Amino acid sequence: MVNSVVLDRTFAACAHPIRRAILERLAKSELTVREATSDFGVSKPAISRHLRVLEEAGAITRVIDGRNHRIRLSEDGLTGARDWISQRALWERKFDVIEEYLASRATTQDSPPS
Amino acid sequence: MVNSVVLDRTFAACAHPIRRAILERLAKSELTVREATSDFGVSKPAISRHLRVLEEAGAITRVIDGRNHRIRLSEDGLTGARDWISQRALWERKFDVIEEYLASRATTQDSPPS
Repeated sequence: MVNSVVLDRTFAACAHPIRRAILERLAKSELTVREATSDFGVSKPAISRHLRVLEEAGAITRVIDGRNHRIRLSEDGLTGARDWISQRALWERKFDVIEEYLASRATTQDSPPS
Repeated sequence: MVNSVVLDRTFAACAHPIRRAILERLAKSELTVREATSDFGVSKPAISRHLRVLEEAGAITRVIDGRNHRIRLSEDGLTGARDWISQRALWERKFDVIEEYLASRATTQDSPPS
């Protein structure tokens, strides 16, 4: 069971296009901070804030190797949010509608011709 | 392709425990505003703000029937966020690790005994 505060932070971390773009870049491999954050057209302090939000959410991990800061997706950093938003309960109504439709079709087909 | 602004709003809407609780209550059925929002121990203005965030994100729909306000989960209101966070690219590294492991195991098994 994922802590509610962790879910708050993960969803908030995903709620900005630059942060989502950083996560997508990191999906393939660990990157330097520069590689992960170049060409967004925003200031360095803004980039730092985005990285801090991602780190505090546990979505990324920073690896400091001398003067090189590399970042990577945290193992399972997004799992709680993915599981919450994918939970069957939230999508159950749709399954119910399909089941109702299939049931009504079955009933129609079972009826003798009038 | 879901609009980035829509994704921002959906993820932000999910980034609060009360809003997630409202969505979970609505998962089963359409409810009155009172049923969907009772017992959270917060003020009416706070509840109104949470509902507005959910509505502006397209996560819920309000049905006004005379004096009754009923709300329900929007059809596909969370789909974009679910699809983004579930995209294979974000989880690919994990598959790669499994594939590497299987490949290394296969290589070990293929080696002649020393």
